[in-house]
Amino acid sequence: MARLIKERARKRGLSPGTLVHIGEKSGKEVNITVIDYDEAHLQEIEIKTIEECFPFKEKPTVTWINIEGLHQAEIIQHLGDCFGLHPLVMEDILNTDQRPKVEDHKDYLYIVLKMLHNVEGPEIVTEQISLILNPSFVISFQEGIEGDVFTPVRERLRSGKGRIRGMGADYLAYTLIDAIVDNYFAILEGIGERIEDLEEELVSHPKKETLHRIHELKREMIFLRKAVWPLREVISTLQRGESPLIKNTTAIYLRDVYDHTIQVIDAIETSRDMLSGMLDIYLSSISNRMNEIMKFLTIIGTIFIPLTFIVGIYGMNFDFMPELKWRYGYFAVMTFMFAIGIIMLFYFKKKKWL
Amino acid sequence: MARLIKERARKRGLSPGTLVHIGEKSGKEVNITVIDYDEAHLQEIEIKTIEECFPFKEKPTVTWINIEGLHQAEIIQHLGDCFGLHPLVMEDILNTDQRPKVEDHKDYLYIVLKMLHNVEGPEIVTEQISLILNPSFVISFQEGIEGDVFTPVRERLRSGKGRIRGMGADYLAYTLIDAIVDNYFAILEGIGERIEDLEEELVSHPKKETLHRIHELKREMIFLRKAVWPLREVISTLQRGESPLIKNTTAIYLRDVYDHTIQVIDAIETSRDMLSGMLDIYLSSISNRMNEIMKFLTIIGTIFIPLTFIVGIYGMNFDFMPELKWRYGYFAVMTFMFAIGIIMLFYFKKKKWL
Amino acid sequence: MARLIKERARKRGLSPGTLVHIGEKSGKEVNITVIDYDEAHLQEIEIKTIEECFPFKEKPTVTWINIEGLHQAEIIQHLGDCFGLHPLVMEDILNTDQRPKVEDHKDYLYIVLKMLHNVEGPEIVTEQISLILNPSFVISFQEGIEGDVFTPVRERLRSGKGRIRGMGADYLAYTLIDAIVDNYFAILEGIGERIEDLEEELVSHPKKETLHRIHELKREMIFLRKAVWPLREVISTLQRGESPLIKNTTAIYLRDVYDHTIQVIDAIETSRDMLSGMLDIYLSSISNRMNEIMKFLTIIGTIFIPLTFIVGIYGMNFDFMPELKWRYGYFAVMTFMFAIGIIMLFYFKKKKWL
Amino acid sequence: MARLIKERARKRGLSPGTLVHIGEKSGKEVNITVIDYDEAHLQEIEIKTIEECFPFKEKPTVTWINIEGLHQAEIIQHLGDCFGLHPLVMEDILNTDQRPKVEDHKDYLYIVLKMLHNVEGPEIVTEQISLILNPSFVISFQEGIEGDVFTPVRERLRSGKGRIRGMGADYLAYTLIDAIVDNYFAILEGIGERIEDLEEELVSHPKKETLHRIHELKREMIFLRKAVWPLREVISTLQRGESPLIKNTTAIYLRDVYDHTIQVIDAIETSRDMLSGMLDIYLSSISNRMNEIMKFLTIIGTIFIPLTFIVGIYGMNFDFMPELKWRYGYFAVMTFMFAIGIIMLFYFKKKKWL
Amino acid sequence: MARLIKERARKRGLSPGTLVHIGEKSGKEVNITVIDYDEAHLQEIEIKTIEECFPFKEKPTVTWINIEGLHQAEIIQHLGDCFGLHPLVMEDILNTDQRPKVEDHKDYLYIVLKMLHNVEGPEIVTEQISLILNPSFVISFQEGIEGDVFTPVRERLRSGKGRIRGMGADYLAYTLIDAIVDNYFAILEGIGERIEDLEEELVSHPKKETLHRIHELKREMIFLRKAVWPLREVISTLQRGESPLIKNTTAIYLRDVYDHTIQVIDAIETSRDMLSGMLDIYLSSISNRMNEIMKFLTIIGTIFIPLTFIVGIYGMNFDFMPELKWRYGYFAVMTFMFAIGIIMLFYFKKKKWL
Repeated sequence: MARLIKERARKRGLSPGTLVHIGEKSGKEVNITVIDYDEAHLQEIEIKTIEECFPFKEKPTVTWINIEGLHQAEIIQHLGDCFGLHPLVMEDILNTDQRPKVEDHKDYLYIVLKMLHNVEGPEIVTEQISLILNPSFVISFQEGIEGDVFTPVRERLRSGKGRIRGMGADYLAYTLIDAIVDNYFAILEGIGERIEDLEEELVSHPKKETLHRIHELKREMIFLRKAVWPLREVISTLQRGESPLIKNTTAIYLRDVYDHTIQVIDAIETSRDMLSGMLDIYLSSISNRMNEIMKFLTIIGTIFIPLTFIVGIYGMNFDFMPELKWRYGYFAVMTFMFAIGIIMLFYFKKKKWL
Repeated sequence: MARLIKERARKRGLSPGTLVHIGEKSGKEVNITVIDYDEAHLQEIEIKTIEECFPFKEKPTVTWINIEGLHQAEIIQHLGDCFGLHPLVMEDILNTDQRPKVEDHKDYLYIVLKMLHNVEGPEIVTEQISLILNPSFVISFQEGIEGDVFTPVRERLRSGKGRIRGMGADYLAYTLIDAIVDNYFAILEGIGERIEDLEEELVSHPKKETLHRIHELKREMIFLRKAVWPLREVISTLQRGESPLIKNTTAIYLRDVYDHTIQVIDAIETSRDMLSGMLDIYLSSISNRMNEIMKFLTIIGTIFIPLTFIVGIYGMNFDFMPELKWRYGYFAVMTFMFAIGIIMLFYFKKKKWL
Repeated sequence: MARLIKERARKRGLSPGTLVHIGEKSGKEVNITVIDYDEAHLQEIEIKTIEECFPFKEKPTVTWINIEGLHQAEIIQHLGDCFGLHPLVMEDILNTDQRPKVEDHKDYLYIVLKMLHNVEGPEIVTEQISLILNPSFVISFQEGIEGDVFTPVRERLRSGKGRIRGMGADYLAYTLIDAIVDNYFAILEGIGERIEDLEEELVSHPKKETLHRIHELKREMIFLRKAVWPLREVISTLQRGESPLIKNTTAIYLRDVYDHTIQVIDAIETSRDMLSGMLDIYLSSISNRMNEIMKFLTIIGTIFIPLTFIVGIYGMNFDFMPELKWRYGYFAVMTFMFAIGIIMLFYFKKKKWL
Repeated sequence: MARLIKERARKRGLSPGTLVHIGEKSGKEVNITVIDYDEAHLQEIEIKTIEECFPFKEKPTVTWINIEGLHQAEIIQHLGDCFGLHPLVMEDILNTDQRPKVEDHKDYLYIVLKMLHNVEGPEIVTEQISLILNPSFVISFQEGIEGDVFTPVRERLRSGKGRIRGMGADYLAYTLIDAIVDNYFAILEGIGERIEDLEEELVSHPKKETLHRIHELKREMIFLRKAVWPLREVISTLQRGESPLIKNTTAIYLRDVYDHTIQVIDAIETSRDMLSGMLDIYLSSISNRMNEIMKFLTIIGTIFIPLTFIVGIYGMNFDFMPELKWRYGYFAVMTFMFAIGIIMLFYFKKKKWL
Repeated sequence: MARLIKERARKRGLSPGTLVHIGEKSGKEVNITVIDYDEAHLQEIEIKTIEECFPFKEKPTVTWINIEGLHQAEIIQHLGDCFGLHPLVMEDILNTDQRPKVEDHKDYLYIVLKMLHNVEGPEIVTEQISLILNPSFVISFQEGIEGDVFTPVRERLRSGKGRIRGMGADYLAYTLIDAIVDNYFAILEGIGERIEDLEEELVSHPKKETLHRIHELKREMIFLRKAVWPLREVISTLQRGESPLIKNTTAIYLRDVYDHTIQVIDAIETSRDMLSGMLDIYLSSISNRMNEIMKFLTIIGTIFIPLTFIVGIYGMNFDFMPELKWRYGYFAVMTFMFAIGIIMLFYFKKKKWL
């Protein structure tokens, strides 16, 4: 449940805008990288103190500041003061249980997204990514739990191939969002494979754990859905081009991301439907199998019950029981019982009970 | 069910605007405190009669009148008359089964909220908070059942730290709303822990009470949802800034509360989904366990039934039963039966029935 | 099902506007009362023929004509002709299976509501109330099955206390609607109590009838919902103040009724959710109990089956069975069987099957 | 399933507007009647060739052409050419699997409705009615499977009573639609009676067929719903009075039909809810009854199992079994067993298992 | 699951607009045909290299370029460059897991549809069709897995019958869309037949595979729904005539396609409802049948249990058991047991348990 409500209660009673990091603490140090580029040049540096990146503020080139690790609130404070961020924005960057959203603060856009990591085991790790976009800057904040999905973006920037170097900060922001959404497909493919495995298991040899794994996946889908659904609204808002910070040429690319988001949501809904169907199949096949066993056992019992009654008859100690004296009485009774057993077996077979 | 419809029927037939308190009667006395402040000064007094607060009406400073306890209708009457409240507003303040809502009465805003208390036991106690906001006044009405969540707000006012003293009455109202919504996270965290405990119990040793506790939590969620859902609409209305009583600088903070409300609703919905899933797991695992037991018992029975038949055979009293005369007949039959038992056990094992 | 579709088919093929009463026939006579008032005077008369109320049409005072009993179509015909009602309105007044609705006919508003009666037994009786509102008139039509909920309104009119005498016909209409909606709370309280009783019954001693009573209540909720849901729309329309027949001062009171309607709908939905939950609890506790019994019985059987096998062994008639000759064979076997029984009991206890 | 997709695939690949009749072929001949009237005169003729009705086109009187039977595409072709119908309209008239809809073609309105017939058996027969409405003409197309519901309309036209003769073609169209919708109430009443019968059967003596009949009715409701739901939209469109072909005086009557449609939809939804509830009751009462039987049988078994064990004990052949020698050993054992049986019975009774 | 998320992850990290074919690889060669026509002439050629079709660009006649097979990305690249397609459009053409959509790129419309193929087996194969429409061109892209549904369109073009040759490129696009939607009816008819078969199987002899087949069909419906639902939006957008590329005369035909789409969606929803109903029937009839068997077996057991007890009594070895000495004791006991058996049978019959 820690995933449902992160320790937000800790903040209760504090003045709004108080900067306290809420979320998993990563033991690693905060990692700040700056990539500054235009069509011709690219400069990439790793900085130690946040103040080193302030000079880039005045340059006309596009600058991407990437901050990995949120547990040092003072870094965000300094950066926010320098770039004129609203206190509530700084607070939200540190509170990693935000829903995906976009806020238009005139001078800059504040975008919250969820980056997913498919670590070992069934659970999907969610990491909050905050983006600050202004005309010549993109600042990205990561929780720094698991690495990121931006490596290909960095590669493309360095190589200078494609459109990316020639376009503005908004295109860079688009590229980052695109990288995050593209990663959802990989996550979904992983889930898809697990669903397929489960389906096969279901048909060939359903067992108790199958049920737990279906429920686990269903739960995973609940959280995935929670992370992706609001994204639709976010990207739709960006793409509608209401903010002058998003150029028309970029908006067309955002429409593409929007389509991808819809596809992801579609896939999540379809997976949910399929998991529900699988649950139904599992439950009915388990109960079917149990019924078959019980029926088989009961039939065995039912065949022997009348036979046991018959042998009981001839176990009675009446003085006068003519059959007992007969030479072949024993064999006759044995044959008779055998016949009854066979007849019952046939009857049950004919009725398709066996 | 008293929670569903408080004794509203008692009011039937009364003229609208008749002031009758509906809700739990607190035995405590009505408690009225006044905090009057501007950026430089703060005056905090506890008053005995409501008339003592009327002089503050004309002062340009921000005044917060907090009334704890609604069972003395005449206090609300006097106050309402002095501040020009509509009779229906006064009625609604006393009828503590209102849904959260906001009403714009031109001169003042009337806001109804639900404050939650997580007392001992599974039940969550709901208390109605009414706020009257005009340019220089905030009046808050509490039922006074359980104390309130405003202590940190008072602390901040007294200390004078943060923005709160420098901003107007609307910011104070925001702070109060924020305190109430923040408290929801604590409540949800409590519920989250109980869900987690239940989940563990479900996996390790499900018992009868587990079912009742799941249902109890589900019911609690129904009431929680009823208290929180309309809040979304309320805060959305406030934040849209249609009323001149809410300044733009405050509206941005209300947007933050709005985000929190959505998060709370999200968490409630997710909890509901999870509880439904848990119910399914519980029911299927209980029926699974029961089936396993019945299968085990039936298998034991099924193994002994043919054996009992065999011993029955040799209990028959036929004069001519050759086996009975054999020297090792008894041992042969015992061995034979033992073999049959073993074979059946193996058969059931192979079929995975055991 | 008569409640689903009243004998409407009887009207098939008739020209629209043909006045035929559809609904339960009350044996009582039609009862017409007129209350005519302004702030200073009030005149209350019971009239025999409908024509007696026509003179009031021209008077500037507010007149409330209340007609109880719809089985004499000609009364409605005369009244309608005198007050210029549209033939379809007259038809709808007589067809008591209308949904709650409001129709704006420029000169007058036509409002249909459902009055509920909680007679003995689980069933809730629905009675259609039609209101005709014009600037100085309110005409109310009741089916006259069960009495009405307007007594307090009459009392307030007669006593002249409160606002009611000083305000116009629209305020009178509001008062009548308010009386009807207020009565819903009483109905819901009754249902709430029955739900509470059922819940207690469910926990302490669920029986077969519990199921039927839950289903009965669920069905009652279906009909209640059908009667109340459209009301929301009706009152919302009235309160929006689009018709000049509703003054602004009255609209604010209608907003209050609107809030009540939402509360009623909320309570109905919550009750439905709770009943569904109770149904689930009932079913699972019944099946639980049944399973417990079957398990207990099967365990008893399972303990005795091997024992019966053992006594069967020593009932065999082999000539050579050494144990039979032993001095204490009998006691040894008895002790042995007793031990087996005890061991099995312990085993089942340890496994928590008992 | 023929009801789901009529043999539409046959048309695949044909040019749009190609006239091919899709639907059940009626063996009867195509039947064309013309009723031409104004307030003073009425002329009613049955015509053989479609060309006979063309002269009426120019007359200022209202003309109603009713065509029963659609299997002669050339008739529709001629008529359509003469009255200037769009090829797609002619195609839709012949394709009898349309959803109810209204199309505004400036000169004329094209309206599709579903006429229901409650023939013997549970199935409800659906027949498509197409109406063409222009200022002085109404053309109605029926499939001609089962007769129609327009007889009362004809009677009213002939008798000249009521408004119908004095109003225009739009009022005639309204009358036809009204007749169709009124007929739905009769259908629903039939279904209502069957639901009532089923409910009684459910309470008194549920049997296997009850289940099938509930499912049959549920399926019937699916198709009914499909036929009626879109009607709401159709009539709402007509009544909004956007087309000059519908006069205001008629629109008010259409609003009445609209109310009826909502009532029909309401009744369908309520029936669905009730059928679902009945299904639940059926399933739980069947499983209850089965459980009762099994419990009873198992209890009988459980009482005799220990007794059989006891008689088994005294059937053992030990040489030394003191009880066997006792004078009243037999009677003592019998009494003992009787006592055990009685005690068990009492125990089960006390536990409410019997 | 490959159907849920095609190997999209392969594209992760690539620059947007990079052309990589995603989807099933067809082994066949890419097939390009050009049909160029006006009312008088028609030229149909199969071309080898994509460049051969560029000259048609300037001609005023309508040209339809059909490309079957998407695995050679460079062909789409050349074509796109020549006709000025946006890189994202080219990317989407190759990514065959798009949802149906329409994009207005001013100069041309880009339309994505799903063509369905009903190959052997239960699975329905989905093929993505992309259409590029400008004033004198239609370019259609198929995956080329299974042939297409455009043969009748080609026939009509060649024959020159109907409207098609005289109208513009938008009418051609409509014809192609119409062909695809018409084909859905054939697919649905196939599914309808399988549902009917299943229903019959369900009534006459439900077996285990029935369950799997119902679930298979349900899953098929999930995918079908996913392919068809967005189409509604697509065609609605086209038909609203916002783009000047769609003439009004064509829009009226698109409205017809829109109606068909609604019918298809209706049929899918109805099928889903019916399949759910069938699942319920299957499950309850299976459990019913199982219960019947178990009841029968238990009754047999219950009849013999007391009888076995009785024979056990007379198998006891008490020295003094008077009945054993009686001349007809044996026969008396046999008769007595027979009577008990008969009485129990009658009792069970009377209780309707047999």
